Amino acid sequence: MDRKVSDAAIRRLPRYYRHLKELENEGYTKVSSKFLSERMNLTASQIRQDFNRFGGIGQQGYGYRIREITYALACIMGQDNEHFYNTVIIGAGNMGRAVGRYDGFAEEGLRILAYFDQASELIGQKIGNKEVHPMEQLKAFVRQNHVEIGVITVPAAVAQAVADMLVGAGVKGIWNFAPVDLKVPEGVALESIHLTDSLLELTYRMNESVEPGHSR
Amino acid sequence: MDRKVSDAAIRRLPRYYRHLKELENEGYTKVSSKFLSERMNLTASQIRQDFNRFGGIGQQGYGYRIREITYALACIMGQDNEHFYNTVIIGAGNMGRAVGRYDGFAEEGLRILAYFDQASELIGQKIGNKEVHPMEQLKAFVRQNHVEIGVITVPAAVAQAVADMLVGAGVKGIWNFAPVDLKVPEGVALESIHLTDSLLELTYRMNESVEPGHSR
Repeated sequence: MDRKVSDAAIRRLPRYYRHLKELENEGYTKVSSKFLSERMNLTASQIRQDFNRFGGIGQQGYGYRIREITYALACIMGQDNEHFYNTVIIGAGNMGRAVGRYDGFAEEGLRILAYFDQASELIGQKIGNKEVHPMEQLKAFVRQNHVEIGVITVPAAVAQAVADMLVGAGVKGIWNFAPVDLKVPEGVALESIHLTDSLLELTYRMNESVEPGHSR
Repeated sequence: MDRKVSDAAIRRLPRYYRHLKELENEGYTKVSSKFLSERMNLTASQIRQDFNRFGGIGQQGYGYRIREITYALACIMGQDNEHFYNTVIIGAGNMGRAVGRYDGFAEEGLRILAYFDQASELIGQKIGNKEVHPMEQLKAFVRQNHVEIGVITVPAAVAQAVADMLVGAGVKGIWNFAPVDLKVPEGVALESIHLTDSLLELTYRMNESVEPGHSR
């Protein structure tokens, strides 16, 4: 299987997974590329191509077996049922707490072990049942607990320094919520949630759609 | 100016804005497309094309005047200094609170007026200095307060119903944090933050980069 996959194709994987899980919850066991294409606003041929490429599974008779495809997608996305990703959250502010308290991420294997912050008044506090540790302990904690993912929810100005610490301590993936484009070395995965960028896209589209004389 | 802009191009706009603001904060007043291209990991010709298209401003001498470009970008993205977007947050849970308490969004004109929730124990509570109202009051509140943006932070199962209520009440934009693809009519802008999709992309990339025999 060719693994040099475009970013756009990679972004489709979780969407397939989510929609197929929804269909399964609704009681479906099989689905056609046509049905899925209408639901997801993609072309059926795009879906067949992706499933053939990622799942290695062709459409059989009336459609795809949903469980087979979701299983194949889950494996590709590192969602082996047995594997948990030990995770730390750097920044015990509102966003860090929101991420840490969201139950849904456990389904994706995110196992949050602890928070880290530099604010002395937060050290020792518990968020849920997870303790806030001082930054000085980050490196040792990551090593001792085989932490694979670091979630960055600190201000932009210190986010790169935190990323460097996490990489130096040996994490394999960084989930960044700070409004800055981080640099990580080859072999470390990086995914960013840029909330402000998303908000600006929204206000762009709001103005685009109301401006007279300009069709979308 | 041709407004039929690709999604990829629209996504670049906030990134330009963010990087140019950073440069301005670092004391720069002018920047060349080459310098910016290295910083943003884009080609210089892509940047020149975008700035010409969106900003309508060509490179002068040694570079672009940062303030001119950021001003042009701000206008395009609906970031007129005088304009505030009256906003309500539907769902007063962890994510709703995190969005509501984040100071940074005020810079983008987000003016959060109130929270709405269906949990009776939350009604009347204050988050920051904003009150949580019952869902039954949503429609009237949106109309009376000229609310333009609805932020959806409710569970997936009820997100579409909430979006329909917001659209019915007259909002122009929906910022969706629920893990579901919402449908909105033409003329209403929609932007989604899919946290779980992002997490799955991260675990995909973590497995992609460690798998032996597969280069990125």
